[in-house]
Amino acid sequence: MGRNHGDSGKLLFTPGPLTTARATKEAMLRDLGSRDATFLEIVRRMRTKLLELAGVPKPGPYEVIFMQGSGTFGVESVISSVMPRNGRILVAINGAYGERIAKIATVSGIHVSELRYPENTPVREADVEAALREDPELDCVAVVHCETTTGLVNPVENIGQVVKASGNCFMVDAMSSFAVLPLELEAAGIDFLVTSSNKCFEGVPGFSVIFARREALLSTEGRARTVSLDLHAQWRGLESTGQFRFTPPTHAMLAMERALTAYEAEGGTSGRRGRYEANHAALMHGMHKLGFRPYLDPVYQSCIITTFYYPEHPRFSFKAFYEMLSDQGFVIYPGKLTHANCFRIGTVGQVFPKDVEDLLNAIESTLAAMGVEMNPS
Amino acid sequence: MGRNHGDSGKLLFTPGPLTTARATKEAMLRDLGSRDATFLEIVRRMRTKLLELAGVPKPGPYEVIFMQGSGTFGVESVISSVMPRNGRILVAINGAYGERIAKIATVSGIHVSELRYPENTPVREADVEAALREDPELDCVAVVHCETTTGLVNPVENIGQVVKASGNCFMVDAMSSFAVLPLELEAAGIDFLVTSSNKCFEGVPGFSVIFARREALLSTEGRARTVSLDLHAQWRGLESTGQFRFTPPTHAMLAMERALTAYEAEGGTSGRRGRYEANHAALMHGMHKLGFRPYLDPVYQSCIITTFYYPEHPRFSFKAFYEMLSDQGFVIYPGKLTHANCFRIGTVGQVFPKDVEDLLNAIESTLAAMGVEMNPS
Repeated sequence: MGRNHGDSGKLLFTPGPLTTARATKEAMLRDLGSRDATFLEIVRRMRTKLLELAGVPKPGPYEVIFMQGSGTFGVESVISSVMPRNGRILVAINGAYGERIAKIATVSGIHVSELRYPENTPVREADVEAALREDPELDCVAVVHCETTTGLVNPVENIGQVVKASGNCFMVDAMSSFAVLPLELEAAGIDFLVTSSNKCFEGVPGFSVIFARREALLSTEGRARTVSLDLHAQWRGLESTGQFRFTPPTHAMLAMERALTAYEAEGGTSGRRGRYEANHAALMHGMHKLGFRPYLDPVYQSCIITTFYYPEHPRFSFKAFYEMLSDQGFVIYPGKLTHANCFRIGTVGQVFPKDVEDLLNAIESTLAAMGVEMNPS
Repeated sequence: MGRNHGDSGKLLFTPGPLTTARATKEAMLRDLGSRDATFLEIVRRMRTKLLELAGVPKPGPYEVIFMQGSGTFGVESVISSVMPRNGRILVAINGAYGERIAKIATVSGIHVSELRYPENTPVREADVEAALREDPELDCVAVVHCETTTGLVNPVENIGQVVKASGNCFMVDAMSSFAVLPLELEAAGIDFLVTSSNKCFEGVPGFSVIFARREALLSTEGRARTVSLDLHAQWRGLESTGQFRFTPPTHAMLAMERALTAYEAEGGTSGRRGRYEANHAALMHGMHKLGFRPYLDPVYQSCIITTFYYPEHPRFSFKAFYEMLSDQGFVIYPGKLTHANCFRIGTVGQVFPKDVEDLLNAIESTLAAMGVEMNPS
C-alpha cells in the first residue's frame, strides 16, 4: 500500500514536520557561510518575498523576522520581547496551543487572564470585547488561528476588529494556518503573527517566521527577557547588517527558499489551499464512508488537520492502529484532547488526494485486520 | 584555484557553520515524523552515543540534552534554567563569548561578577580561586573553553579543580572545542557543558548539545525563566517519552547522526584533532612564510581558529581581500577583537591540509593582485 517513498521516509499525515518536496530537501545539499554575502542575499530575498506573500509588500507597515528554533520559540520570542514588565495579557484558549501561550506568559512574569472555551468551540469576539471592557489595564490579546489540537479555526479577523478598537496589542499564533487559510494582517489588526518554516510553506523545521507591525515592534525595544529570543534585537540585526545575531539554520533556510518558490508556483494561498481542501474533502468523504465520526462541527473545521473519535469497538487499540498504518508507510497523529479519545489526520505537506485515498484503503484493511467492525455509511 | 565545489558551495574557513561531508547533507533527504518511532529511536541512539564519545557512557553521572536553536540558545538554556533566583555567577571573560555569557546572565536577572582579561590572555585558575574566596555567596562559575573570538584555549580542567573545591556549579561553553580539544567532564568537575551540532562534530546548524551532571540537573527543576529553553523540562521529555516537547529540527538531527558515524570512523577526538592540527600547522607555516603575524602567543593557540593581524600596508583592504578570496571559493572570517585589526581563519570542518594549501595560494595571489607587498620570512 501507499507510495514507495524509498529513502525519503513515510508519508506524514501530521501537522508538521511534513512530507516535503524532494527539491526542497535537495536545496540543503549546500554549505553556506552564515555571514557570507551569498547567504545574506538569500535571507534578504526571502524576507522581501514573505512580506509580498502576506499581502503587505515593502515598504508597508510590516516587518518579517526569522527566529531560530521551533514555532513555540517564535511564540515565546513575541511574548517575552513585546509584553511590558507587569503587563497584562488576555489569552483566548480552546486547545493546547492557547494553553501554551498562557503558560509562556505566566513564566515570563506576565499577568494572564484566560478566556476559556471547550475544545470544540471557537472563540467569540463578543466575549473578547466584554473581557477588554472589564479590564481596561490589559495590554495585549493573544489567540490561535487554527488550533492544531483539533483543527478548529478561530475567527481571527473578527476578534482583531474588537482588539484594534480597544487599542490593545494583538498577537496571533497562526502556526499551522498561515499561507493557506485566508488572513489579512492589516484588516485583522494584527500586531504580531507567528508561523513556522515547517507548516503550510512546506519547508523543513528549524525556525519560525514572525510578522510584526513595525510601529508596534519599535515600541518594544529593551523589553526582552532573554538574549536569544529578543525579537527587536533579532530584527535590528537582520535590518542593519543583514545577519543573524547567532548562527542560523542555514540549511533549513535554503530549504525554505526552495519551498517558497514551489508555493508561488502552486498559486500561493489559494492554490495551495485548493489542494489541501481536496485532500481534506477526500479524507472526510472516505472516513465518513468507513464509519468514523469527526470531533468538530464541520463549520469550524479547517482543511489542515482533522480530529476523529476512536471507533467504539473493544478490539480497537490506537497504538496497534498507528503502528500498522506506520508499517504501511502512513504516519498519522495521536489526539491531544482533554476529554475525548480521538486521533488526528493532517492533510498538509506534499500529500495529494491520491495519497489520501491510499491512506483510506490502508485504514480500511487495518481495521479489518484488527477485527474492528464499524457501521459504515 | 580551490576545489570545485559545484552546487555544494565554497570552502568554509570559518568557525561554523562549516563545510560538511556530502553524506552528512544527504542524510537530510528524508522527512521523518517528529513523534514517530523511527525518529525517536535515532534520537535515543544519538544521546547514548554522545555520552560514550564524551567518555561518560551510560549509566554514568551525566545526561545529554538537545536544545533547538543555535549554540547561544543552549548557553541561555543552561544559564536561565540552572541559576537560582537572585543567584550569583562569576564569568571569566577574555573574548566575545565570555561577554555573551555575562549578558545572558544579566538579562536573566542574575548578579554577575566579571573576571576580565585582555583578549590574548588566558583565564588563570588562581584568579578564579581568589574571586571565589572573596565572594562566598557565588553559586556558579562560567568559562569559555576555546574563545572563538581569537582561538585562545582556556585551562578549563585547572579552573574546574578550583571551582569543584569551592562547591560552586561549573558551566563551560565548549562550543567550538568539544569533540576535538581534550576535556574530561568528570576530571574537570563540569556540571554543564554546551556545544553545538555545527562545530567539531561537523553536523549542520539547528540545535545545541548540552551535557549535564544528573545530580546538578535534578536540583534545578522549576527554576527555568522560559518555557522553550527549560533545560530540565527538555531533559524530562526526552527521558520519559523520548520526544522533544516542541518540534525538533528533524533534518539537522539526521545530519548529526550521519556526522557522528563519520566522526567515529575518523578516530573520534584524537583522529579528528590530528587532521585539524595538520590543517592548522599548514596554515601557520604558510601564513608565516607570507609574512602574516598571528595575534596569539602560540602556547595559547588552538587548532580550531586563528587570528591574524591585517598586513600593515596602505593598499590592504579586508573587504576587498575577503571578497576576492570568496570569488575564488574560499570563505574566511572577519575579526571580532576590541582593540586590534585582525581577521580569522578556521581550520575545522571538512577541510584538509591540501585545501589549506589552496587557500594559501589564493591568499598569495590575492595580495599580489591587490598590490600588497609583505615581508615574507
